[in-house]
Amino acid sequence: MGDPAGIGPEVVLKALASRPIAKLVQPILVGDLAVWQETAERLGLNMQFASLRPAPAAGGVPVFITSALATRYRAVGLPATKRAVAACGEAAYAAILAAVDLVQKGEAAAVVTAPISKAHLGAAGHDFPGHTELLAELAGGVPVRMMMVGPRLRVALVTTHLALADVPQSLSRANVLETITIAAHALRRHFGIPSPRIAVAGLNPHAGEQGRFGMEEVQVIAPAVKAARRRGNDVSGPLAADGLFAQAAHGDYDAVVCMYHDQGLGPFKLLHFTDGVNFTAGLPFVRTSPDHGTAFDIAGTGRADPRSMIAALQLAARCASPSTLGLIKSAISQG
Amino acid sequence: MGDPAGIGPEVVLKALASRPIAKLVQPILVGDLAVWQETAERLGLNMQFASLRPAPAAGGVPVFITSALATRYRAVGLPATKRAVAACGEAAYAAILAAVDLVQKGEAAAVVTAPISKAHLGAAGHDFPGHTELLAELAGGVPVRMMMVGPRLRVALVTTHLALADVPQSLSRANVLETITIAAHALRRHFGIPSPRIAVAGLNPHAGEQGRFGMEEVQVIAPAVKAARRRGNDVSGPLAADGLFAQAAHGDYDAVVCMYHDQGLGPFKLLHFTDGVNFTAGLPFVRTSPDHGTAFDIAGTGRADPRSMIAALQLAARCASPSTLGLIKSAISQG
Repeated sequence: MGDPAGIGPEVVLKALASRPIAKLVQPILVGDLAVWQETAERLGLNMQFASLRPAPAAGGVPVFITSALATRYRAVGLPATKRAVAACGEAAYAAILAAVDLVQKGEAAAVVTAPISKAHLGAAGHDFPGHTELLAELAGGVPVRMMMVGPRLRVALVTTHLALADVPQSLSRANVLETITIAAHALRRHFGIPSPRIAVAGLNPHAGEQGRFGMEEVQVIAPAVKAARRRGNDVSGPLAADGLFAQAAHGDYDAVVCMYHDQGLGPFKLLHFTDGVNFTAGLPFVRTSPDHGTAFDIAGTGRADPRSMIAALQLAARCASPSTLGLIKSAISQG
Repeated sequence: MGDPAGIGPEVVLKALASRPIAKLVQPILVGDLAVWQETAERLGLNMQFASLRPAPAAGGVPVFITSALATRYRAVGLPATKRAVAACGEAAYAAILAAVDLVQKGEAAAVVTAPISKAHLGAAGHDFPGHTELLAELAGGVPVRMMMVGPRLRVALVTTHLALADVPQSLSRANVLETITIAAHALRRHFGIPSPRIAVAGLNPHAGEQGRFGMEEVQVIAPAVKAARRRGNDVSGPLAADGLFAQAAHGDYDAVVCMYHDQGLGPFKLLHFTDGVNFTAGLPFVRTSPDHGTAFDIAGTGRADPRSMIAALQLAARCASPSTLGLIKSAISQG
C-alpha cells in the first residue's frame, strides 16, 4: 500500500488494471481495505476486493488487511494533523511487515512496495531512512544495495543519501567489494545472467588519471576490483565515469557499480525517466519499487502516472522466476 | 592541427572530405604542411594543399604554415624520444597561436582545434592544463567555461579536472554565478537563443533536501541562482541532478550548469557519445573541438572516427553565424 495518503494506492490499482499487468501477476494487496476500495471508486475502476484471511472470496482481489484507518485519517494528500501523520505511518509500516511475512512464508513470490514517507514512519515511532533499510532489518540485517534497473541500464550504488563531501571518506575496499559481490549475486540469482559483466566507475574525473586527480581509484577501488576478480567475478574498472554509461547502455556491461547517488542516477534517469525500477539487491527475496515518491501534492487527483509501478511489477514477476527464464532462454538458444 | 603524432590531422582531413562538411565550410588548415600532405596520402585522399601566405594557389586547401617538422619527428603514435615529444608540443603550440591570430584578425570565423597532449606542450615549455586555459590566456585572460554541446543536451561546468573530494570547497557563489552568466551569454551570442533557460544542478543527492545532505545548495548555489536572476537571466535551481538531465534533453532547458566534471559529462556522453562537441564559452571568438584525445595508440592506422570532428566543424559554422541563423529561423516561422 505504501503511505495511504500518497499516490501509492492509486498507482497500484492503475497498474493492476493495466493490460500488461492484468495477465502477468496474481496480486495480493496488503494494507487497508477501505483505502483500496475508496481508491478504486475514485478512479472509477470496477474492482472487487476480498480479505485474504481466512480465504478470499472468489472473484475479488485478495487483500491482506493490516490496518483499519478511521475515516478522518483516510484523506489523501499531506495529512493535516499529527495524529493523521502517525496513523498513516503506522498503516504503511504494518503493510510492509505483512508483505515481507507473506514472501518469507512462500505465500507470495515477490514484494513490490509503494512509496512511503520517512517523516510519517518516524512519527509512528519507526525510524528508518527508507524502505531499503527497513527491509534489510526485517530480513535479518543482511547487507543490501540499491540497484536501479531499466531495460538498457542497471546501476548499483556503493553510497546513497550522503552529502557529496562525505562520499570520498565513506568509500572503503570492503564497501566497494561488497557492492560488486551483492550486485553480481543478484544478477546471477534473479536476472538469469550466469556470468554478469560488471563495470566499476571511478570516483574522480577520468578515474583519477593514475592519481593526478585523487587517490581513491589507486588506494580503494582498484584493490576492491582485484579482490572481486579473485572471487571469480567478471569485473572491469575503475573506469572513467563519463564514457562508461554509453558503453553499458550499448550492452558491454550487465551493471555499473557507482560510487555515489548522482553518479549512477544522473545517467540512469536520463535513459529511464518513466520506466526505471528500484531493486533491492542482497535481500533473500525479490523486492522492487517504483522510482518515485508519495507525491502528496497530486494525491487523490487521479493524475499519478503508473508507468514506474507497472515496470516494478513486471520486473518483480521476471526476477521471481529466473529458473523459468533460464529454461526459456536455453530452449530458445537450442532452437 | 593539434599534436602531429596523434589522430588530429587524420580526423580533420576525413571530416573536410566528408559530405556534410565539404559544402559547409571554407577551411584554413593551420600547422605543418608535410604533416597534412602525408596524412592525406596515407588516407588515400586526393587533396592538394597550398600555403596561405602570401596568397594560396587556386584549387588547393590553404595551409597557414606554422612549423616544418624534420622527417624524424613526423612519425605518428606516441613519440619515442624527448626531442620528438618537444618538437610535437612546439608544433601544436604554434598552430594554436596562429589559429587564434587568424580569428582575431577576422581572417577566420571560428577556431576548431584538434587534440593536443598536455605532456607534449609541457615538454616544449608551455605549461597549460589544456587548450581551454591556453585560449583564455591568448584572449587576454578572460574567464571561460567548458560547455559540452550536443543536439539534445548542453552542459556547462563550474569545476573540471579536480579530485571529487576538492569539489565542494571549490564552489563559491562567485564561481557558480560566473558560470551561469558565461553560459547565458554564449547561448545568446553564439546559439541564437535570446532568453536562454538555464537549469543549475545541486551538488548533493536530491539537491541536499534543504540541508539534510550537505549545505552547499543553501549557502552557495541558491544565492548564486538568485543573483543570476536579478541580472535578468532565466535560471532554475538548484535542482536534483538525477531527474534534471531527462528534462533538459526533453527541451525544458537550453543548458544545465553542473558543479563538477562527471555530473555533467556522465549524462552528456550517454546521449552524445559520438556527436558531442566541446565549446569554450566566454571567449571573444568561437572555438570548438571534438570530444576525444590524441589516441596515440591508433594514430596512423586510419581507424580514427571523424564524427566528433565533423560535429565540431558543424557547430563552429553554426555558432559563427548566429545572426544568419536567426534570419533563417524567422523566415521559416513566418512561412
